[in-house]
Amino acid sequence: MWQQNKFTKEIGIKYPIILAGMAGGATTPELVAAVSNSGGLGTLGAGYMSGEEIRTAIQTIRTLTTKPFAVNLFVPELIDINYKKIREMEQTLASYYQIFQLEQPEIKWQDETFFEDQIQVLVEEKVPIFSCTFGFLPDKWIHALKAVGTLLIGTATTVKEGLLLQKHGMDAVVAQGSEAGGHRGTFTCETNSALIGTLALVPQMVDAIELPVIAAGGIMDERGVLASLALGASAAQLGTAFLTVKESGANPTYKKALLASTDTSTQLTKMFSGKAARGIKNKFITEMEQYSYNLPDYPIQHALTQPLRKEAAKRGNPEYMSLWAGQAAKLCREETTEQFMKRITSGIHGIVDRLTERPQ
Amino acid sequence: MWQQNKFTKEIGIKYPIILAGMAGGATTPELVAAVSNSGGLGTLGAGYMSGEEIRTAIQTIRTLTTKPFAVNLFVPELIDINYKKIREMEQTLASYYQIFQLEQPEIKWQDETFFEDQIQVLVEEKVPIFSCTFGFLPDKWIHALKAVGTLLIGTATTVKEGLLLQKHGMDAVVAQGSEAGGHRGTFTCETNSALIGTLALVPQMVDAIELPVIAAGGIMDERGVLASLALGASAAQLGTAFLTVKESGANPTYKKALLASTDTSTQLTKMFSGKAARGIKNKFITEMEQYSYNLPDYPIQHALTQPLRKEAAKRGNPEYMSLWAGQAAKLCREETTEQFMKRITSGIHGIVDRLTERPQ
Repeated sequence: MWQQNKFTKEIGIKYPIILAGMAGGATTPELVAAVSNSGGLGTLGAGYMSGEEIRTAIQTIRTLTTKPFAVNLFVPELIDINYKKIREMEQTLASYYQIFQLEQPEIKWQDETFFEDQIQVLVEEKVPIFSCTFGFLPDKWIHALKAVGTLLIGTATTVKEGLLLQKHGMDAVVAQGSEAGGHRGTFTCETNSALIGTLALVPQMVDAIELPVIAAGGIMDERGVLASLALGASAAQLGTAFLTVKESGANPTYKKALLASTDTSTQLTKMFSGKAARGIKNKFITEMEQYSYNLPDYPIQHALTQPLRKEAAKRGNPEYMSLWAGQAAKLCREETTEQFMKRITSGIHGIVDRLTERPQ
Repeated sequence: MWQQNKFTKEIGIKYPIILAGMAGGATTPELVAAVSNSGGLGTLGAGYMSGEEIRTAIQTIRTLTTKPFAVNLFVPELIDINYKKIREMEQTLASYYQIFQLEQPEIKWQDETFFEDQIQVLVEEKVPIFSCTFGFLPDKWIHALKAVGTLLIGTATTVKEGLLLQKHGMDAVVAQGSEAGGHRGTFTCETNSALIGTLALVPQMVDAIELPVIAAGGIMDERGVLASLALGASAAQLGTAFLTVKESGANPTYKKALLASTDTSTQLTKMFSGKAARGIKNKFITEMEQYSYNLPDYPIQHALTQPLRKEAAKRGNPEYMSLWAGQAAKLCREETTEQFMKRITSGIHGIVDRLTERPQ
């Protein structure tokens, strides 16, 4: 049956549907638990959360569900700290801060210690499933997580990255196609050299690695989920599709922008965070692209723009928010997570019936 | 059943599999007929062929099959003829012509008359199916083709383009995802604003237009074809996958490059033809990118580089050939068209069986 395979059985979920671990507040404990309670796998997007915030969220999730869930972190990379670039970017951003009469923040960003604190909590809390983006996990943490029984999922945007993740102890690999919203997981080459569409990437990944492959990028409903399974994936990971459900923590202005989007609304930009990510085009992206030659590294740029984006969200101004979205955001709907999961799973049965129907 | 739907019945094919009309010699009459004889729809890629060449090819196809087939043409667009750019490009290309001790050609390119001659033959020959790229067909030709019973298929890279094609009398629309090899069909915006992955584009197109949608881009085997149907497409169009079959007219050096490619081998370039197209990276693309700011329009640039590419192909030098390929070219295989079609169609049954299998 389409619901079941080795991977879904191993992690103990009913449907091969995974909530992407979107950092930034959308994946509330309520959303994570609702997805898991509906038979999928909820993922807490904890990339920007402190260790203690993560612990509290995990404990809340555990009061809401007894089902498996995952936590996603960003693996830290080497940062080039270029103070000249930072000062110049602060000057460039000054006019944006003036729009909101905001004071520019003292520059500080997440370092290696921040990540160590985060992942230490995941070990202590024995999270059932860990997923990560931006590279492979240091061996020390692989051992620590495996010792407490955690299953490890990495993110790849090319077959080469999938092979690296397999070599470095991951138990499954997300194949992130170019359609995906939010940050590109690319960690072995330039972003533009790794923009492979989901439909092209998944079968090549399935052929190349021995681990279960999870399809991601542009999957919004029963059609995308069934297509993923047809391509050989063991599960489909959906991010954008969950942003507009009731339990999502996405800001109302953000939800509105998603629901009003079209197939050509998104573009890739590095201007919000220093790393390439797909979001709905707005004033900030358009105006800032000219400074891309002089951009501080992730997560410095993320820290430099964060208060601005927060204030814009507070005031309901989409032009200065990071409206991360995949290329099929138009298919977003407003409903509860339970309604969403029912729509997808019964929808798949409908398609399967149509494709297997005997001629009259 | 997955094989049949309104569209496949209407055009009279057994399997929802279409050979893309790749211009440049790959779609020999033998390949077109072999695809149609195997239950799919063969398409002659006639974009660069003269009217009389097309007539001969159609007559050959008709000696090889009694099944329906299609012919694909490029709809001409307004060209900006900038002689300064042309002269400068000729100078830039001179060093490449020297490599092969070739004389640079007198500059001449296909004009409106060339297209009129082509399409007039299609009307006279009453081709069963016509497909086109780069825009919509002038009303005059829509009427002429419909009067002889020809079914019309347009190519769209965005929903907006799909709606335009529907409005302008097409009977079906190819949704060309960003994975696709060869020329981008985009005709309403910049190429980069219309690079939507197949998995994201197809369901949005299906929801937006009333015509049958044909999925294209990155589809290489049973997995891609079934995924296309799951996404709501009425058929899948495959180009790259057919380049390495026995009946394909692709040059042996080109076939070798496809078989040796990986998921990250391709990139988009305008340097061969003046229009964005996806091909395997080589020396010519890499070296020429710096001149993209000063590029003559399509098809002038195509004419300027054609003798060079031809000579490189003759000498088996892949570095100066246009090696058009989709993002999953790695999945190419050497076999006959009949073997290919059998592998795909029995493969689909295999996947459907797996997805619908009752638990033991």
